[in-house]
Amino acid sequence: MKIKSFDRAQIEELESRYRARLINSLSGYKSLNLVGTVDGENINNLAIFSSVIHIGSNPPMQAMISRPDTVARHTLDNIKEIGYYTLNQVHEGIYEEAHQASAKYDRNEDEFKKVGLTPWKLEGHNVPFVREAHIKTLMKLKEIVPININGTLMIIGEIMWCSMPEKALMEDGYIHLSETKTVVGGSLDGYYKVSPLSRLSYAKPNEKLKKTKL
Amino acid sequence: MKIKSFDRAQIEELESRYRARLINSLSGYKSLNLVGTVDGENINNLAIFSSVIHIGSNPPMQAMISRPDTVARHTLDNIKEIGYYTLNQVHEGIYEEAHQASAKYDRNEDEFKKVGLTPWKLEGHNVPFVREAHIKTLMKLKEIVPININGTLMIIGEIMWCSMPEKALMEDGYIHLSETKTVVGGSLDGYYKVSPLSRLSYAKPNEKLKKTKL
Repeated sequence: MKIKSFDRAQIEELESRYRARLINSLSGYKSLNLVGTVDGENINNLAIFSSVIHIGSNPPMQAMISRPDTVARHTLDNIKEIGYYTLNQVHEGIYEEAHQASAKYDRNEDEFKKVGLTPWKLEGHNVPFVREAHIKTLMKLKEIVPININGTLMIIGEIMWCSMPEKALMEDGYIHLSETKTVVGGSLDGYYKVSPLSRLSYAKPNEKLKKTKL
Repeated sequence: MKIKSFDRAQIEELESRYRARLINSLSGYKSLNLVGTVDGENINNLAIFSSVIHIGSNPPMQAMISRPDTVARHTLDNIKEIGYYTLNQVHEGIYEEAHQASAKYDRNEDEFKKVGLTPWKLEGHNVPFVREAHIKTLMKLKEIVPININGTLMIIGEIMWCSMPEKALMEDGYIHLSETKTVVGGSLDGYYKVSPLSRLSYAKPNEKLKKTKL
């Protein structure tokens, strides 16, 4: 197999879009979530994030990276103003609408309408979920950690509520994400579907792993 | 479709492993990378991380979350001591070995040998890559950002070098991760393979997306 490599000097010399596509491929596939927010004037906002990660289950928390200079800015402003936001897993049936949410709409436009998705609200909360999403999570802002090195921000939130199709939830708490047809992202603009290999038993030194069918 | 939901009080009441599996499913699928490190006594260490994310392409940087109380501690100690580490994308051919790297080995054990993978070194660097990995990245530690809310740490590194199969690198810098059979993780112990849907054009308001075959 022929191998191609880039050292740091070669990376710096790359044309900027080429470099962005390459560097965005190096971490592997990305989780894809639509982040739903609302502002003080009741205008809904929707943005696609490929950086949501688990950071703890007790208390239950997730983090995501926001760049101050992108379309995600409306999202960031709304999260700061309202203190709540929603995460909605992107699946095979809505990935094109989700991608469209990355377009630079004006702040006063309802992005749900623009991309063709439906807002849905949980009783007692004004922040919009994506009705079409199968896995929905209500997040409460806990902290915004500045990453000084490149001016990005890590938004940390607590999980206040979540929902999923009953048939995707296994007996032991595992959510079968291929039941929900959750997709992943590649680089900046690639979309991929996912199918099960297996679940593996808790790893211990000098003990053979057991495989379970998924 | 019957829906199951959990509010915060219900989440807190869950048995701790159930809760961990559930909460770990909510962000979607996870990228999977083997992190290779070495200590001052030349003992190699290998750990699987499911939290590597892109945080910028200029300068090229990635971040990952480390818990001080897990097997990743050897990794963290080594990164602090040596200042360099490697990322090696997990693919279909090595996912069982990668999972095995999550076992709690003693510090003086060479985890490459224990799990059955081969260390490989780049000229001028002592930090080990996984020879069997198709996509390899050399990282230089830039900053460790403490996440005070739950005691985790965000390790931020700069990309100093990367390599991939020539046939997986497209003309525009996009790496075709299904060519490299890169896998994703679900919850704590699920492994999934990935296949292409499509690439979508840059999204603009009021303009139809163009699909490209992947």
